[in-house]
Amino acid sequence: MANQKLWGGRFSMGAAEILDTFNASLPFDKKLYKQDILGSKIHAQMLAKCGILTQEEANLISKGLEQVKSEIENGTFKFIISDEDIHLAIEKRLIEIIGEVGKKLHTARSRNDQVALDFRLFVLDSNKHLRFLVLNLITTLLNIARDHTQSMLPGMTHLQHAQPINFGFLLCAYACMFVRDFERLESSYQRNNYCPLGAAALAGTPYDTDRYFVAKQLGFTAPMLNATDSVSDRDFALDFLYDTSLLIMHISRLAEELVLWSSYEFKFITLSDAYSTGSSIMPQKKNPDVPELLRGKSGRVYGNLMSLLVVMKGLPLAYNKDTQEDKERVFDSFETLEISLRILNSALETMTIHTDFMLKACRVGHLSATDLADFLVQHCRIPFREAHHITGKAVAYAETLQKDLSELSVEELCCVDSRIPKEAHKSLDLKASMESRNSYGGTSTQSTLVQIESLEAWLNLAKNTLEEV
Amino acid sequence: MANQKLWGGRFSMGAAEILDTFNASLPFDKKLYKQDILGSKIHAQMLAKCGILTQEEANLISKGLEQVKSEIENGTFKFIISDEDIHLAIEKRLIEIIGEVGKKLHTARSRNDQVALDFRLFVLDSNKHLRFLVLNLITTLLNIARDHTQSMLPGMTHLQHAQPINFGFLLCAYACMFVRDFERLESSYQRNNYCPLGAAALAGTPYDTDRYFVAKQLGFTAPMLNATDSVSDRDFALDFLYDTSLLIMHISRLAEELVLWSSYEFKFITLSDAYSTGSSIMPQKKNPDVPELLRGKSGRVYGNLMSLLVVMKGLPLAYNKDTQEDKERVFDSFETLEISLRILNSALETMTIHTDFMLKACRVGHLSATDLADFLVQHCRIPFREAHHITGKAVAYAETLQKDLSELSVEELCCVDSRIPKEAHKSLDLKASMESRNSYGGTSTQSTLVQIESLEAWLNLAKNTLEEV
Amino acid sequence: MANQKLWGGRFSMGAAEILDTFNASLPFDKKLYKQDILGSKIHAQMLAKCGILTQEEANLISKGLEQVKSEIENGTFKFIISDEDIHLAIEKRLIEIIGEVGKKLHTARSRNDQVALDFRLFVLDSNKHLRFLVLNLITTLLNIARDHTQSMLPGMTHLQHAQPINFGFLLCAYACMFVRDFERLESSYQRNNYCPLGAAALAGTPYDTDRYFVAKQLGFTAPMLNATDSVSDRDFALDFLYDTSLLIMHISRLAEELVLWSSYEFKFITLSDAYSTGSSIMPQKKNPDVPELLRGKSGRVYGNLMSLLVVMKGLPLAYNKDTQEDKERVFDSFETLEISLRILNSALETMTIHTDFMLKACRVGHLSATDLADFLVQHCRIPFREAHHITGKAVAYAETLQKDLSELSVEELCCVDSRIPKEAHKSLDLKASMESRNSYGGTSTQSTLVQIESLEAWLNLAKNTLEEV
Amino acid sequence: MANQKLWGGRFSMGAAEILDTFNASLPFDKKLYKQDILGSKIHAQMLAKCGILTQEEANLISKGLEQVKSEIENGTFKFIISDEDIHLAIEKRLIEIIGEVGKKLHTARSRNDQVALDFRLFVLDSNKHLRFLVLNLITTLLNIARDHTQSMLPGMTHLQHAQPINFGFLLCAYACMFVRDFERLESSYQRNNYCPLGAAALAGTPYDTDRYFVAKQLGFTAPMLNATDSVSDRDFALDFLYDTSLLIMHISRLAEELVLWSSYEFKFITLSDAYSTGSSIMPQKKNPDVPELLRGKSGRVYGNLMSLLVVMKGLPLAYNKDTQEDKERVFDSFETLEISLRILNSALETMTIHTDFMLKACRVGHLSATDLADFLVQHCRIPFREAHHITGKAVAYAETLQKDLSELSVEELCCVDSRIPKEAHKSLDLKASMESRNSYGGTSTQSTLVQIESLEAWLNLAKNTLEEV
Repeated sequence: MANQKLWGGRFSMGAAEILDTFNASLPFDKKLYKQDILGSKIHAQMLAKCGILTQEEANLISKGLEQVKSEIENGTFKFIISDEDIHLAIEKRLIEIIGEVGKKLHTARSRNDQVALDFRLFVLDSNKHLRFLVLNLITTLLNIARDHTQSMLPGMTHLQHAQPINFGFLLCAYACMFVRDFERLESSYQRNNYCPLGAAALAGTPYDTDRYFVAKQLGFTAPMLNATDSVSDRDFALDFLYDTSLLIMHISRLAEELVLWSSYEFKFITLSDAYSTGSSIMPQKKNPDVPELLRGKSGRVYGNLMSLLVVMKGLPLAYNKDTQEDKERVFDSFETLEISLRILNSALETMTIHTDFMLKACRVGHLSATDLADFLVQHCRIPFREAHHITGKAVAYAETLQKDLSELSVEELCCVDSRIPKEAHKSLDLKASMESRNSYGGTSTQSTLVQIESLEAWLNLAKNTLEEV
Repeated sequence: MANQKLWGGRFSMGAAEILDTFNASLPFDKKLYKQDILGSKIHAQMLAKCGILTQEEANLISKGLEQVKSEIENGTFKFIISDEDIHLAIEKRLIEIIGEVGKKLHTARSRNDQVALDFRLFVLDSNKHLRFLVLNLITTLLNIARDHTQSMLPGMTHLQHAQPINFGFLLCAYACMFVRDFERLESSYQRNNYCPLGAAALAGTPYDTDRYFVAKQLGFTAPMLNATDSVSDRDFALDFLYDTSLLIMHISRLAEELVLWSSYEFKFITLSDAYSTGSSIMPQKKNPDVPELLRGKSGRVYGNLMSLLVVMKGLPLAYNKDTQEDKERVFDSFETLEISLRILNSALETMTIHTDFMLKACRVGHLSATDLADFLVQHCRIPFREAHHITGKAVAYAETLQKDLSELSVEELCCVDSRIPKEAHKSLDLKASMESRNSYGGTSTQSTLVQIESLEAWLNLAKNTLEEV
Repeated sequence: MANQKLWGGRFSMGAAEILDTFNASLPFDKKLYKQDILGSKIHAQMLAKCGILTQEEANLISKGLEQVKSEIENGTFKFIISDEDIHLAIEKRLIEIIGEVGKKLHTARSRNDQVALDFRLFVLDSNKHLRFLVLNLITTLLNIARDHTQSMLPGMTHLQHAQPINFGFLLCAYACMFVRDFERLESSYQRNNYCPLGAAALAGTPYDTDRYFVAKQLGFTAPMLNATDSVSDRDFALDFLYDTSLLIMHISRLAEELVLWSSYEFKFITLSDAYSTGSSIMPQKKNPDVPELLRGKSGRVYGNLMSLLVVMKGLPLAYNKDTQEDKERVFDSFETLEISLRILNSALETMTIHTDFMLKACRVGHLSATDLADFLVQHCRIPFREAHHITGKAVAYAETLQKDLSELSVEELCCVDSRIPKEAHKSLDLKASMESRNSYGGTSTQSTLVQIESLEAWLNLAKNTLEEV
Repeated sequence: MANQKLWGGRFSMGAAEILDTFNASLPFDKKLYKQDILGSKIHAQMLAKCGILTQEEANLISKGLEQVKSEIENGTFKFIISDEDIHLAIEKRLIEIIGEVGKKLHTARSRNDQVALDFRLFVLDSNKHLRFLVLNLITTLLNIARDHTQSMLPGMTHLQHAQPINFGFLLCAYACMFVRDFERLESSYQRNNYCPLGAAALAGTPYDTDRYFVAKQLGFTAPMLNATDSVSDRDFALDFLYDTSLLIMHISRLAEELVLWSSYEFKFITLSDAYSTGSSIMPQKKNPDVPELLRGKSGRVYGNLMSLLVVMKGLPLAYNKDTQEDKERVFDSFETLEISLRILNSALETMTIHTDFMLKACRVGHLSATDLADFLVQHCRIPFREAHHITGKAVAYAETLQKDLSELSVEELCCVDSRIPKEAHKSLDLKASMESRNSYGGTSTQSTLVQIESLEAWLNLAKNTLEEV
């Protein structure tokens, strides 16, 4: 068999170029430039504090790093793929600017702990950033909820009309999900807020360094306890990918409702024109593109989580190059959530809510059936399972009359079963039904207001805590 | 085209049977019987306390439920698939035992909040149970670590010899991972320890119930705030599936090392015979089946997480039958982790550690190269990047002599580069190299002992906290 | 720190029992008994044919294996967990029954190739079995489609009314998906239908065996080419897990529609009572539990695929114990699909289709807008983008009159834009609109009938091919 | 609670810009420009052929499209995000260039079928492209294999030495995996090679078009059968994401071996310097970065598959915006595999193979144990299970002598058990052991050559077929 490859000509990239492209993380890890420069400055200060560098050397390095930062931010910095990664690219430029002293910066650290630091800082920053956006979203949900504690619509289970609830109450359910998302992010933040710098390659450093100083200056709780763990741990990234997965899952549920509610069949809301689009062929269409995309974004965010879980499976200690695959997935989930939270927030703020169609829908599906059953239990001492059965008969009778249960007259109701007293008729009233669910967590207007206030109190606390960090 | 199906005869199950099998959760949710009975007893007590049942009725129900529990535990309870789920099966039997009063138990609750309660209790119990096992594992790791703070082996990055470390230090890295796993489980516990019972179908209940009483009696922090969220939330299950995914990921890394260390190439350990198996065809084989299986278990646990994430994607509120798919995945991840943690613990306790082979391996791979470079920086004021280069030359020279760098004589070392002083030779000593990494988190014996003590202190605290819960 | 474990008392299983439970595959791989016995019988015949066993020995083994099979099927076989797996359990029993000769069966094979054979046979059988069920489902879809080529409903994009289509046409779309599923299964079958037996542990066997004989007797195309690949390959299982993932994805889409169509908002269908269930608290509810569960099953099937992909990642050759994790996932996906396909089939066969509500829905959403635009292009030589714009104006005008576009009078239509001629009015007719889409693949009754016939022809061919296998 | 958002200032993008960014697919779907322009040209030709456009109009459109293509390829085309997607961007530019006639291009199609066409063409092209690269890789594996059919190394199971095999035989195992990958891609290609254009929005078109003409001109087998299926089907993309997942899984297995083989413990190979990198801190390190990254790439490719499976779950017909999420995942998997296959190919071609270390490793682990057992079965009529036991004793005895089984003298061997004859000693020879496995698929040199020839024959056939397409 001939040795030569017949199809070499089809490919445009040469071997060396391909290899650089394959190995290099620079095209994506340049996003870490801020964290890298900050970490290097603090590292240099620590080296000076510990007498490993002179203070002048440290100052010179700091100044040089500031210049590199400016060059990156004003677009004059040259990213060359053969520099491999942002860490080497910055160090190289630093040495060009300040000369030999720049070569001393890498003392008492390694690329392994440097990468671990930069990426961890990025994830912690992103975590905080998303928490702000989650608070914004909860604020919006509560603002709308306050206006709609009496806007009745059919509460659904199995996408079937179940019991009358108010729209504010429904939005509070979503607010509760996002509260958990905030708290999940917060606990991830605290669990992972430890500093890996100083771990060096995997075994610590022989220099007499001050890791507590570095940790404190960078806002960490403390240095990480074990050097090998420091360079190989990616739990902080996985936690972030998971936290964002639950966030997008909750968003996908609300998005699904927005799609349903925008349909001709529901008509509960109309999205603002900005959040829907037309069709290239069907002139009458107004499509809920934004919630559809929000729903679809769940795929990529879940996929990112799965990706890093797969990468980490079965990796022996300590650092392995496989983990270079961590960054793009995290960047993608962060950017997806950042834009999704903002877009969802605006879509909610600008939608029109059709309380008339919501109310109309309540008259379909015998929503007061549970109330009749409950009445029979509470006032006629009929066991629940019996009451359930009697009410089933009333529903069947209403359907033969082509009425909703709530539309039965007293006489019609009473003729269903001799155990139904006249007073039971008032239990069929839909508004009364909703307001009767007044226990803690229930859908009555009063109970809903309690929920809103409780969430607002939480929100204020959360804002204050977050801003202090 | 003919209407008849040609292949009906191939299938053994009839249509009705198939439908029962498809719908019923009883075959798996019977694991929740304890939680269901406990929840029902507290619910009945609350109904009595609030005057919805008499105290006699509540007592009768409690007694009946106790009998049902006994029947289940002594194997006389009949599980019939047409009873659909454990909740209906227990209620039906209760009514058989105590008669009409049994029908009153379901007052002011629904199957939706009942399921949510039972499953949540199960997950919280499992969470606590796994945390005990994690503490056991950490204890074992630290016990071994204490005995091996001077057992030198080559620290690896990229599966290449990098720097000499001690085995105790390496085990501390794993202990740190499992500490995070414990803390992750603990924060999930706290975030999800709220009671859904009382949410009823989705909108709360018109009865004047006392949800705080129920919550407190069942060990929850408080009732959940919103009824619709209560019945549709499965975050607690997802958190559990994620927490166990990280646990098994960490286990898979340690398992990979055990497989490597058991190989002829490494020989760092020998697993106890109980934890390895032979071959049906190759009489000489001793296979590390246990760590291989532990590594492979990552697949099912990751898969379970993905499964429930997929189920929850895009589900509108409130309860949908799709969520019935939550339980088997959680049961499977719990059981997998329960057995995996126990097995790993015993495998570690019973393995033989070959410190001689570890030491021998240190003489391969020029492990003291970084030390030479560091010496040149610290004592000869050579910038790190330069020192790195000189050391590279020394390594190359040693290889031409077919020696390890640590085996070079003073003369051999000094002839590499004129900038290398005689005193640099002592930096090549492997033991000295290891002990020199004495900064916080480093691999020196002293620093390792600090880590062990710090982890033991954490462990004692964690044990006390957990036992109080 | 104390060495003793405080919580040992909490666990009921002893160490040895745990280890057996952890290692043993018998509890699940006993499902492979048929394949194992068949494979062993053919293996024994081959050994006799090649003079490695005498014919009498082979016959004795065959007879013994038949007895083992009977014992398993009539329930007298004792499964003991310490026998590890079905292969050892059967071999042990065989030796009990026929004595020393039984020990010769394992000549020229290993457990590695034996497992690979049994599992592969199981997967191939399951593949064929699911293909029968897919054909059944397509048959049902086409039977319903034939009855509904004139049942008009609004075709949806973005869950918005788009253009009028017929229900038969819509069902044909699903039939096309399932045709691809069938073809995907079929190509997986062919690609993987090669025999691993004879690969022995990993390197082939020194015995002069006849692998082609074994392959042929067992229905394979040929033996696998390379022994190491034979024992480590799990592509056939992954292909199955993927093929079933696409199947359940398609099912989840149809299930979503069944849920939507069953809602009060759509009312396009009513599921038979057998395929919906009631509520424990809401007497009026009829919940589409079956399609909801079908939709939710996607989670477990996707998860199973991900599980095995994770297991196989990064495994060196040849056999590793990790792959023991392959079977339960495959069994679960097979059983899930088997029951899901049958249930879906019956749910479709027994549902009631409300063509009146479908028709009514067509009068909402200006379904004939595209037709008006097309008319303007075709008959008035107005460029499409212009026509699109004019039609948009007509839709807006209809909305000010609170009419559907199809309800505009000639006069109303023509006053929208001077370029609209009177004859354009006929393009607003909904039925005409549907029938006009008469190109290949379109929704006209005629075109739909062409599709049905084409699918039926495919079906007949597929049936014949499948039955011949 | 105040309405204002406190953190608005933190975000740099304005609301409108965010919305464009969120909705637009242009930043990534511009990769489809070639497919879009080709599809449009053929569509215009068909419109002319069917009398819907004049031939002059079609020619003008073609010419205009060619100009657009040139502008894109020479970098003068302006991509503006508010143009949303590549389809609108090209159409807009076309109209600028050729005027009103350009507006007629979109006749008888919709963006739904246009997107479906472009993306499908891209996936089919990528499929073919990867198949070329797979053939290249197989060629390389076979070239190396040919040179190493006598290079003996220990075949491993459970990462334990099992039986002696040759290196060429081991590479054939990988070749077999890649053959299946090729065939899997090929069957996906054939199953999905049907043309969606002409489906229009979802229901077909009223124009009298010729879909067979379009299909044929574009290289498809035929048009797709059902219009709704045509616009909503993403099976072709999922098939691609799955096929690439298996490819990368196989690559990850080989990569794992390259990492192991490059370690000091194995030393079976040395990667060329270009395919390994150094350490920033450890001057002696040579890290197998390339295979590590190849192994880690499995994460992203698996994740991409999972992403699209999640997106498609539960989507009702027909087109939904969620599916816009399909493209980036496919692009990423394609690009990952393209570069991974090329890199792996070069890494293999340039690595140095240390047959001396391979051979040395054979003298560890009693590799001829199975041979001894087989000898006892074949020549002494001892049942296999017994022979297995006797051999176990011989291995144990060798270990007490600190010898490998293959190093035992005749006397030493025979004293283990009286049933061992002197002639058995020759079965301990390692080379003889390897050569004895001469059955089909076995590891003898002869059998390996048969495999190589068989694979080369397949390769020639595959090349020819692929180039004809």
